[in-house]
Amino acid sequence: MGVIRLGYVHAKVNDLSEATRHYGETLGLQLTDSVDGKSYFKGWDEWDHHSVVLEEGGSGLVKMGFKVSSDEDLDHLENQMAAFGLTVRRVHRKEEHAVGEAVEAILPSGHVMQLYREIEVLGTSVGTVNPDPWPDGLLGIGAPRLDHLLITAEDPALLTRFFTEVLEFNISEKVVPEAGSNQILASWLFRTNTPHDIAIIGGPDAKLHHFAFALDDWKELLRAADVMSKTRTSIDIGPTRHGITRGETIYFFDPSGNRNEVFAGGYITYPDFPCIEWTVEQLGTGIFYHNRELNEAFTSVVS
Amino acid sequence: MGVIRLGYVHAKVNDLSEATRHYGETLGLQLTDSVDGKSYFKGWDEWDHHSVVLEEGGSGLVKMGFKVSSDEDLDHLENQMAAFGLTVRRVHRKEEHAVGEAVEAILPSGHVMQLYREIEVLGTSVGTVNPDPWPDGLLGIGAPRLDHLLITAEDPALLTRFFTEVLEFNISEKVVPEAGSNQILASWLFRTNTPHDIAIIGGPDAKLHHFAFALDDWKELLRAADVMSKTRTSIDIGPTRHGITRGETIYFFDPSGNRNEVFAGGYITYPDFPCIEWTVEQLGTGIFYHNRELNEAFTSVVS
Amino acid sequence: MGVIRLGYVHAKVNDLSEATRHYGETLGLQLTDSVDGKSYFKGWDEWDHHSVVLEEGGSGLVKMGFKVSSDEDLDHLENQMAAFGLTVRRVHRKEEHAVGEAVEAILPSGHVMQLYREIEVLGTSVGTVNPDPWPDGLLGIGAPRLDHLLITAEDPALLTRFFTEVLEFNISEKVVPEAGSNQILASWLFRTNTPHDIAIIGGPDAKLHHFAFALDDWKELLRAADVMSKTRTSIDIGPTRHGITRGETIYFFDPSGNRNEVFAGGYITYPDFPCIEWTVEQLGTGIFYHNRELNEAFTSVVS
Amino acid sequence: MGVIRLGYVHAKVNDLSEATRHYGETLGLQLTDSVDGKSYFKGWDEWDHHSVVLEEGGSGLVKMGFKVSSDEDLDHLENQMAAFGLTVRRVHRKEEHAVGEAVEAILPSGHVMQLYREIEVLGTSVGTVNPDPWPDGLLGIGAPRLDHLLITAEDPALLTRFFTEVLEFNISEKVVPEAGSNQILASWLFRTNTPHDIAIIGGPDAKLHHFAFALDDWKELLRAADVMSKTRTSIDIGPTRHGITRGETIYFFDPSGNRNEVFAGGYITYPDFPCIEWTVEQLGTGIFYHNRELNEAFTSVVS
Repeated sequence: MGVIRLGYVHAKVNDLSEATRHYGETLGLQLTDSVDGKSYFKGWDEWDHHSVVLEEGGSGLVKMGFKVSSDEDLDHLENQMAAFGLTVRRVHRKEEHAVGEAVEAILPSGHVMQLYREIEVLGTSVGTVNPDPWPDGLLGIGAPRLDHLLITAEDPALLTRFFTEVLEFNISEKVVPEAGSNQILASWLFRTNTPHDIAIIGGPDAKLHHFAFALDDWKELLRAADVMSKTRTSIDIGPTRHGITRGETIYFFDPSGNRNEVFAGGYITYPDFPCIEWTVEQLGTGIFYHNRELNEAFTSVVS
Repeated sequence: MGVIRLGYVHAKVNDLSEATRHYGETLGLQLTDSVDGKSYFKGWDEWDHHSVVLEEGGSGLVKMGFKVSSDEDLDHLENQMAAFGLTVRRVHRKEEHAVGEAVEAILPSGHVMQLYREIEVLGTSVGTVNPDPWPDGLLGIGAPRLDHLLITAEDPALLTRFFTEVLEFNISEKVVPEAGSNQILASWLFRTNTPHDIAIIGGPDAKLHHFAFALDDWKELLRAADVMSKTRTSIDIGPTRHGITRGETIYFFDPSGNRNEVFAGGYITYPDFPCIEWTVEQLGTGIFYHNRELNEAFTSVVS
Repeated sequence: MGVIRLGYVHAKVNDLSEATRHYGETLGLQLTDSVDGKSYFKGWDEWDHHSVVLEEGGSGLVKMGFKVSSDEDLDHLENQMAAFGLTVRRVHRKEEHAVGEAVEAILPSGHVMQLYREIEVLGTSVGTVNPDPWPDGLLGIGAPRLDHLLITAEDPALLTRFFTEVLEFNISEKVVPEAGSNQILASWLFRTNTPHDIAIIGGPDAKLHHFAFALDDWKELLRAADVMSKTRTSIDIGPTRHGITRGETIYFFDPSGNRNEVFAGGYITYPDFPCIEWTVEQLGTGIFYHNRELNEAFTSVVS
Repeated sequence: MGVIRLGYVHAKVNDLSEATRHYGETLGLQLTDSVDGKSYFKGWDEWDHHSVVLEEGGSGLVKMGFKVSSDEDLDHLENQMAAFGLTVRRVHRKEEHAVGEAVEAILPSGHVMQLYREIEVLGTSVGTVNPDPWPDGLLGIGAPRLDHLLITAEDPALLTRFFTEVLEFNISEKVVPEAGSNQILASWLFRTNTPHDIAIIGGPDAKLHHFAFALDDWKELLRAADVMSKTRTSIDIGPTRHGITRGETIYFFDPSGNRNEVFAGGYITYPDFPCIEWTVEQLGTGIFYHNRELNEAFTSVVS
């Protein structure tokens, strides 16, 4: 079965208490644990112990965790990653808080990835018996779940090859120099039926462009933007629509400068999804469908 | 990889020209072909040749098609279905219009299912190079794609077992006599990350309760209901929300009495989704979350 | 200038504490005062002391209050109402809690109406200096304001004539036996630019059909219906759309059986608005645009 | 009764045929007439002959028309305007196409205003007998009606005084140097129950900042922005929310550089609406609630 989903994003922040205000009160994630200088968060509609891990130390990505279906997947993907030439190691039970045995690899781009099968299960906020569609008492934006992340790499084509060949991701969309070209300048990749679980664009190795939380629809984005204004959260751009993924979006920053996104809409994908190409000269429209041009900050600011 | 998705619903109608007005002009599907007394339709965001096939002869389900990933899947699932005790046959290329070689089985409930890997690809209406998020010129509701179907069976537990054990579907929600019971009275089943690709409730064998088309959000449902009023389409219930799947819904009928649904929202599922239980005494709330009770027609009218 | 708006609805309920849960926690109005067995409520976006007054004694309308622009309006309308043949009396300051001097009349239908110019001003929840678009901490539906009421009368034409001739309301829509008829079977009347501030349908004298609170849009109605389900509020019908007023709606009941509505959308009116006619045979479509037929309860249940 | 509403905006454009594509096909207004080098447009939900008049000659405002209730209003306001010191003249029947006798004044800011009581009535697109809530066949954005305009003046306080004292507008919001100040730097003014029919900000005399069309809700703004992208319409800013008026907005430009807006939401006003103050240091939040800062173009570009 392989990779189920993006399980968690582990990021650095300047200050855990201001980060907790941002992720806990503004985004409305639930703080599920604070252990050894790390704070763990989940969305109300997630059942696993955490989808966001924060520790102090500046900004940027410590690692990303992908959940797999079985122990056999772990063994198999460990071998496949080693065969691809990556440095791979076993992460023993208890080494990663609330997570079982895992496999960790340094990607060709320098990003650290963990694959794991087991994680403590806390359940969603609405439970599994005759549940209501949403829980009372949410704070701020009340984001239900983590959706995807976007990372930068000096060689996006190589990293795309890793995700498709080794982890069996599919490509929903790619940026190419011109229509029909085989050269991949950026890619959006899925294992689920969403437009993307991870995306890769050209940029410095080992850097994080943003990680995103799902919202229900365009109206929730308006409410989210209002909450950001009330809480003096720094908005990068939006609410607007992406050409790529067709999704609706707001980009904004946490207090340490990590870019977040709230994301809604987008099409459904399948393994036979006809891959979409964006030509470089239309990339502005691909990123920001309404304004049809990139803003400076979008391409230059990473963490 | 196995089953990718519900590929098509093949149904009977009284009159193809009035059905074409309903599916083509009111629902806004695209008529892609008319061959040998059958009309083929697809949503604007689907790439395969058809997701709905209609032929004259009353009402009800002729068969349902599920698309699989590979020829190996076809062979494997053919064997698994035979091992489950089903009558299975190969459908040769050209026997099913626009579809490649397929495997057909009579399910324990008497429903006919085809699995196929190959189908003619027509592409979506927005194309794959720098696409707009939606096409101009849609008619009526402009439904982008087929989403799921719900069938009735005298033994829903047996049919659920078939879908989970043989076709490796997961159960998102089930109706049980009481919380914790192992007895399955109805089930919602997924292969994708949607709340359901197919659902099974108790009722007569070989019957169709409804098939559903995805819409973007709750606002699109209002517009759809307005279009139904303008076109004098018979609305069964809605717009409202389901407790089960959390989705927003309108049930309505085609001119031959086949129940259709337009469906939006709902959570995302994964193989590790914690299965939700609805107890029989809360089933009204599960089906219609706002009114909290079943209407007579919902449970008794099938085609 | 004359009548500014529907200022308040004063209704009877069985039990003030359960009514306070309904109006305060489910509808999310703010309890502003409890004096002499009466509870006073306002929406968060209203500035006057109250828009709803409740007292124990069953169900139904005690009186309705309309706010006027000036003391001259009070004098003028007092004379006009007397000239129309109504019994009119002055309500002295302090007689009506938080309200200044008023004029009270018994309408031809037996309903009691107060006109007043002065009322204690509490301000909205967002204030008047650099306000946010909405306040934090709302409960339940969080209705911002009272919108309109609908009353029944044995002679709706006479009552319509009173509102248009004496209080200078305009008619936005009316029900007529057939197109072009002068006979008014029901009317929707406005002083503001909304589709209606009050409406009149045929039925027993002195009865209340419903009073309605404004919500922002169709998405807020979904959320409101969800809150009603969570709080076991009895929904009469909806969410759906009216043909008349074009508004989106949910009808529901307070614990005493008074019908409430949450209402969104609808066109803008002006004094030169071309009056819309609904013929009796299309009245079902006029009331419930999607189902195109009246339900029994809608026409028979009043309080 | 006085002024009913902003009736029409008469503007200059570079080229009538490209302007007709913008106002007719992108905004979706209906071209109702082309006479003597002028094109007349109305929204589908407006009944009067036109709400937009265009003629060639560059860009900017030729004049604005406000509709009044009666011939007595015309006489009365003619006198009042003259008493205020304005140059006023009678516009005779047939001088202004499709409009009856009018009164024209040069405002203190140099803008030209016409007041009129009579205009040819064409009716809305849904008619007045058992109407549907919206018509089929709309083009592009399908804007139902004109909403307001914003003009610049070297002395906004003086122009505000004219609108409030002479035309009896009320002030919904104003910009002040600091809370409680009597100095008016900008004002939003209403005769209807909307947040504004006209607004005035500091800037060059006789200039147009923008004129705006109403849309139903935030979701319609997304669709409008999509249409603008498809038609390569130049977006200034949005979709976003205003702090002032609380409305949702997109600013964009017609091909001649006149700024347009589509506007949804906002509160309801009444003559007793508590006037809102925005202090200069919070003006960015007042104009663009999400970004909390003015963009350069917003304040400097007028036509």
